[in-house]
Amino acid sequence: MKIIIVGATGTIGKVVTEEFSKRHEIIKVSRSKGDVQVNIESPKSIEAMYKHVGKFDAVVSTTGEGYFGLLKSATDKDFRKGVDSKLMGQVNLVLIGQHYINAKGSFTLTSGILGEDPVVQGSNLSMVNGGINSFVIAAAIELQNDVRINAVSPGVVEDSPGHFPYFPGHIPVMMDNVVAAYIRSVEGAVTGKIIKVF
Amino acid sequence: MKIIIVGATGTIGKVVTEEFSKRHEIIKVSRSKGDVQVNIESPKSIEAMYKHVGKFDAVVSTTGEGYFGLLKSATDKDFRKGVDSKLMGQVNLVLIGQHYINAKGSFTLTSGILGEDPVVQGSNLSMVNGGINSFVIAAAIELQNDVRINAVSPGVVEDSPGHFPYFPGHIPVMMDNVVAAYIRSVEGAVTGKIIKVF
Repeated sequence: MKIIIVGATGTIGKVVTEEFSKRHEIIKVSRSKGDVQVNIESPKSIEAMYKHVGKFDAVVSTTGEGYFGLLKSATDKDFRKGVDSKLMGQVNLVLIGQHYINAKGSFTLTSGILGEDPVVQGSNLSMVNGGINSFVIAAAIELQNDVRINAVSPGVVEDSPGHFPYFPGHIPVMMDNVVAAYIRSVEGAVTGKIIKVF
Repeated sequence: MKIIIVGATGTIGKVVTEEFSKRHEIIKVSRSKGDVQVNIESPKSIEAMYKHVGKFDAVVSTTGEGYFGLLKSATDKDFRKGVDSKLMGQVNLVLIGQHYINAKGSFTLTSGILGEDPVVQGSNLSMVNGGINSFVIAAAIELQNDVRINAVSPGVVEDSPGHFPYFPGHIPVMMDNVVAAYIRSVEGAVTGKIIKVF
C-alpha cells in the first residue's frame, strides 16, 4: 500500500511510520520536515499535498494541536487552536482526501482518551476528540468506493512522560498497543470504529 | 430562578420557555426576537448579552445551526457553519457565562442523537454534537462555585416532521420528554451528564 502519514515526525507518528515502513510505501508528511510539508490548518495546503502525492491507499493522521489550560481563563481564541488544528485539520484531510484516495482505501484519524475521560485543563482537547470520534462514525456511512475511516483514541502514552502529571492515576499505555491500533485500522477491514487504547 | 433561554423562539426553545415560565423568571434570547438579541457566532455579542442581563442562575441553550448535506460535496466552509454556530456558539455561552453566573447555577447545552447515531448528510452535526458532549463532561470538572453543566441530546422530535425523511426508522421522541430532560438538568443536581432523549 501507499500510505500518507501526516504527523510522521511526532511522538506517535514516528513509531507508526517505522512500523508501516516495513511493508508499505510511506509518504512522510509533517509541518516542516518529512517528504512533503503541509499546514493542516489550511485547506489549500492540504489540497496541494494531495495533488503533489497523487493516488494513495491510506492516510494515517497522528497530528493536530489543541489548547491545554484552565477552563476559567479559556477564551474563544484559545479554543480555536484545537478547532483549527486537531479537529478541522484532520476533518479536512478527509473532506479533501476523499477526492484523491483509491477505492478500498482508508483514513485513520487520532482522537484521544480526553473525549470521554476528562482531566483538568483538557476541556478544549476533550471537545476536539469528541468531535473527531463522532465525525468518524458519520463519515463511515457516506464514504464512497469502499473507502473506510476509523479513529485511534489513545490514552496518555508511555513515551510522553512530560504529560503524566496532568493525567493523575492514568496508567500510561504501551506504544506497541497504540501502533497495533493503527495497524488494525489500516490493514484490517473495520470502518466507523473508535479504536480505544486505554 | 432567573433563567436565560438562548434560542427561546425555536422548536424546542419555545416549549422549554413555556414550561420554565410557570415557576421561574425567564429572559428570552434569540437572534432577532425575544427580550434580548444575541448572535452566538460572536463572542462580543455574547458578552454584551450577559452584561445586559446581569446576574442569573441558569442558561439553557437550545440554539445553533450546522451544515446538513452530503459528505462527498462538503467543504471546510460548510463545516465551519456548525463549528461557529452550534459548537463554538454554545461553548462560548459557557466560557463567557462562567464569569457572570451565580454560584450553584447551571448551563444546559443541546447536542443531539447524531453524535452517536449518524444519518446520511449529518456528518457536520455529528461532529458538532460529539464535540458538545465531550466539552460538557470536561467543563463539569472545572467549573467553580458549584456551577453545573449538562447537555440534552434529543432524537428527532415529534414537532419537526420535516426532518423525519432524513432519519429513516428513527422513532420521533415526544416533546414532553425533551422538556423533561431540560428540567432534570436545571432543577436537578446532576453535572457532566449527557441526558439522552431517544
